[in-house]
Amino acid sequence: MISKLKNDRLLRALWREPVDATPIWIMRQAGRYLPEYRELRQRAGSFLALCQTPELACEATLQPLRRFELDAAILFSDILTVPDAMGLGLEIVEKHGPRFETPVRSRADIEKLAVPDPGSELRYVLDAIRLIRADLDGAVPLIGFAGSPWTIATYMVEGGPSKDYALIKGMLYADPASLHRLLAIVAEAVTVYLNAQIAAGVQVVQIFDTWGGILSPPAYGEFSLDYMQRIIAGLETDAGGTKVPVILFSKGCAPLAEQIADAGAAAVGVDWTADIGEVRRRIGNKAAVQGNLDPAVLYAPAEIIRREAASVLEAYGPHRGHVFNLGHGIQPGVDPDKVAVLVDAVHELSRSYHAS
Amino acid sequence: MISKLKNDRLLRALWREPVDATPIWIMRQAGRYLPEYRELRQRAGSFLALCQTPELACEATLQPLRRFELDAAILFSDILTVPDAMGLGLEIVEKHGPRFETPVRSRADIEKLAVPDPGSELRYVLDAIRLIRADLDGAVPLIGFAGSPWTIATYMVEGGPSKDYALIKGMLYADPASLHRLLAIVAEAVTVYLNAQIAAGVQVVQIFDTWGGILSPPAYGEFSLDYMQRIIAGLETDAGGTKVPVILFSKGCAPLAEQIADAGAAAVGVDWTADIGEVRRRIGNKAAVQGNLDPAVLYAPAEIIRREAASVLEAYGPHRGHVFNLGHGIQPGVDPDKVAVLVDAVHELSRSYHAS
Repeated sequence: MISKLKNDRLLRALWREPVDATPIWIMRQAGRYLPEYRELRQRAGSFLALCQTPELACEATLQPLRRFELDAAILFSDILTVPDAMGLGLEIVEKHGPRFETPVRSRADIEKLAVPDPGSELRYVLDAIRLIRADLDGAVPLIGFAGSPWTIATYMVEGGPSKDYALIKGMLYADPASLHRLLAIVAEAVTVYLNAQIAAGVQVVQIFDTWGGILSPPAYGEFSLDYMQRIIAGLETDAGGTKVPVILFSKGCAPLAEQIADAGAAAVGVDWTADIGEVRRRIGNKAAVQGNLDPAVLYAPAEIIRREAASVLEAYGPHRGHVFNLGHGIQPGVDPDKVAVLVDAVHELSRSYHAS
Repeated sequence: MISKLKNDRLLRALWREPVDATPIWIMRQAGRYLPEYRELRQRAGSFLALCQTPELACEATLQPLRRFELDAAILFSDILTVPDAMGLGLEIVEKHGPRFETPVRSRADIEKLAVPDPGSELRYVLDAIRLIRADLDGAVPLIGFAGSPWTIATYMVEGGPSKDYALIKGMLYADPASLHRLLAIVAEAVTVYLNAQIAAGVQVVQIFDTWGGILSPPAYGEFSLDYMQRIIAGLETDAGGTKVPVILFSKGCAPLAEQIADAGAAAVGVDWTADIGEVRRRIGNKAAVQGNLDPAVLYAPAEIIRREAASVLEAYGPHRGHVFNLGHGIQPGVDPDKVAVLVDAVHELSRSYHAS
């Protein structure tokens, strides 16, 4: 499968094979910082319509690749499509964020939930994947993704973004059995969904555990990592029998990188608050590492962007298994030209680390 | 000074001397979870009026001590009184948070700032301290506090709470010289302010670095820790010539605990996402450690609160220098009876670790 791609740097880095330059992709690379995205979003009428119309989702996915020499495409979608397909009634409220019409608050609410059939209820995602793969024509790999069960459950229980996560944490400490039941159902839904994405053509999978970092270390293991491990263990190979590498990104959890690597992830994603060199040393040969430039560096002049990119590359050093990324999604106010500076800097400045 | 207090557990623990039981106080222990606080806040008319009226601030400070066997009082105030005194025009907007009328956005804005004279511009805080000390009559020590320069500057530049800190981080990467200028002025203001608090009678000082954790490790050192170190170095002894211990709490920065201890803090505050036992081992004999129960544990039934408190005590082990606290401020929805459960559990369950 690697050999069929014109640019296989990402897959090579994920499997810790030699590369000519460090691959780079950017979380939320298809997004609001691009004027052509804003135009497309306008045309779609709403964010959800954009996600749910395969031709438009395909277009959004491909937009950043026309501008920048990125080493991967990532499916344009949202982690909350899964609970939406479970019947919670997702809406995106301007300047507020996602909101569920019927949040999950009780054991009875949980018992009513069913694992959606991706082939029907999330078919629009699978159709988008097939369109994107056809359009990419092997130029770069396509990354699929899902939210972690813990992160998805956080939104399902809180009903939207939260400042203190009082409801789900209340459940965690006061009624852990119910939370485990909820997480088991979501983990099953995510497993089935990611297998459908793989069957439709994604070549890499990232699990976004945006809220793993609000847990104490033992709670993270029990309520977040265990379920991600279960998902990874349940993933099938692609149509050609090839194993699909999983990038596991638990924001704020770099101190637990070794545990994350042990959960079966091909790569551990780390945010910018970690020292990526130290993470690599701790993980050793267990997994690749993805990260970890502070997204705010993209507000700086070009020479600072190059300097900070160089500093991340240097921290990682001349080792296999580095996938360059920001430590979190790109911010909407960034000038797209700065992204070109970053992508080119990573390719150019990393070559010396890979020469042998 | 220690011997004049009826309960000197906190000071002993901060100086890593033997204690009979682990001291406990709770961040935001005077606050919205208490019905008598909500009544007082109503009576004051606004949060700022409550902070700025010494009799009311004194009353708010003492309220939790009437209910719980806490080992310290903490001044009721706000970290944004300093930039307010610098003329930025603080207002607290319901359901939104603090907002500054004139945020600091340019070098010219920064050059206009002056260090306030606490004796006049923050006199209401010093008057409150004198009232509280008189009322406490040596029962427990009084903790004073200030925000860290980085955290205060974040609010000054963003103008209020922020999701992505685009403005201050833009300044950090694009114009670090201006940010350093701003931080130097705020550090000077905080030093003078804390010295005035000490002269008025606070016996311990905590620096709240709520937003230290949004920085990369090198940026944290350069833009946050260095300025806190400067403040600590500039603190004077109390009226009796006794050194006042400093607790430095950088939320999200436990991986950098050794550096924090090296900055001169008597104690390093850690949030609940860290393993407090591991932090203690890394710090060794350099400093005490404060923390770190997940505040959300207080939503659980009493037996779970006792179990989780026991688990923090066990993680710290039979060593000197533990100050029990939550890993962040107590949440407004907590039942006050749960706080009594926690305080009693810590005192009762910790005794075996201190018997010798």
